[in-house]
Amino acid sequence: MEYESINFAAKLEKIDDHWQPRVLAELNDYQFKIVKILGDFVWHSHTDTDEAFIVLDGELRIDFPDGQVTIGRGEMYVVPKGLEHKPFAEQEVKMLLVEPKGVVNTGDEESSARTAKNDLWI
Amino acid sequence: MEYESINFAAKLEKIDDHWQPRVLAELNDYQFKIVKILGDFVWHSHTDTDEAFIVLDGELRIDFPDGQVTIGRGEMYVVPKGLEHKPFAEQEVKMLLVEPKGVVNTGDEESSARTAKNDLWI
Repeated sequence: MEYESINFAAKLEKIDDHWQPRVLAELNDYQFKIVKILGDFVWHSHTDTDEAFIVLDGELRIDFPDGQVTIGRGEMYVVPKGLEHKPFAEQEVKMLLVEPKGVVNTGDEESSARTAKNDLWI
Repeated sequence: MEYESINFAAKLEKIDDHWQPRVLAELNDYQFKIVKILGDFVWHSHTDTDEAFIVLDGELRIDFPDGQVTIGRGEMYVVPKGLEHKPFAEQEVKMLLVEPKGVVNTGDEESSARTAKNDLWI
């Protein structure tokens, strides 16, 4: 039987857009996604789920109503469910997302220009 | 409000043992754990859950009954539930585990010498 690891750098080479997460792997009913982002996302929240960010390259800032967090390469952060947040990348950020399958990237702002298709595998 | 990212390197500096995962963060009822390993683990499986490995440093090998996978730095692999596997690190490996809260690290081999305490935060 062939078993093959998932190489983040190799997957990132196949991505030439921003804000469109691709699925790398599933863990039960959760998905690992990889994405490049640049600029400003929309304010949104996820009513039913936390959301994990792991930064592979660059510096991600997430704004909250009462503060912000900066997440560099080799760092992670979990945004708790229900908390309004807005990701921002002054320069390109490459990162992993971990969240339940089916979560809309823009949360309660489902018709945003930033709303991405789900279940695109890479 | 203060928000702080989780830095993997800083957490790893606090760990001076092997095979004892520490919890970094929770995502709903899942946990992100960080661990250093060296040498051979035990053959085991997890009946009810998949298990994700993300290698931060070193080279992890996971043996299966009919093959093996090598997972290097910047790579991940998800072992499907029910599949017998044995992690192995010829030299020290630093890695993240993602799995549901409460999973026993040695799975169906609960009384192994390698069985670790759960819910140790770092």
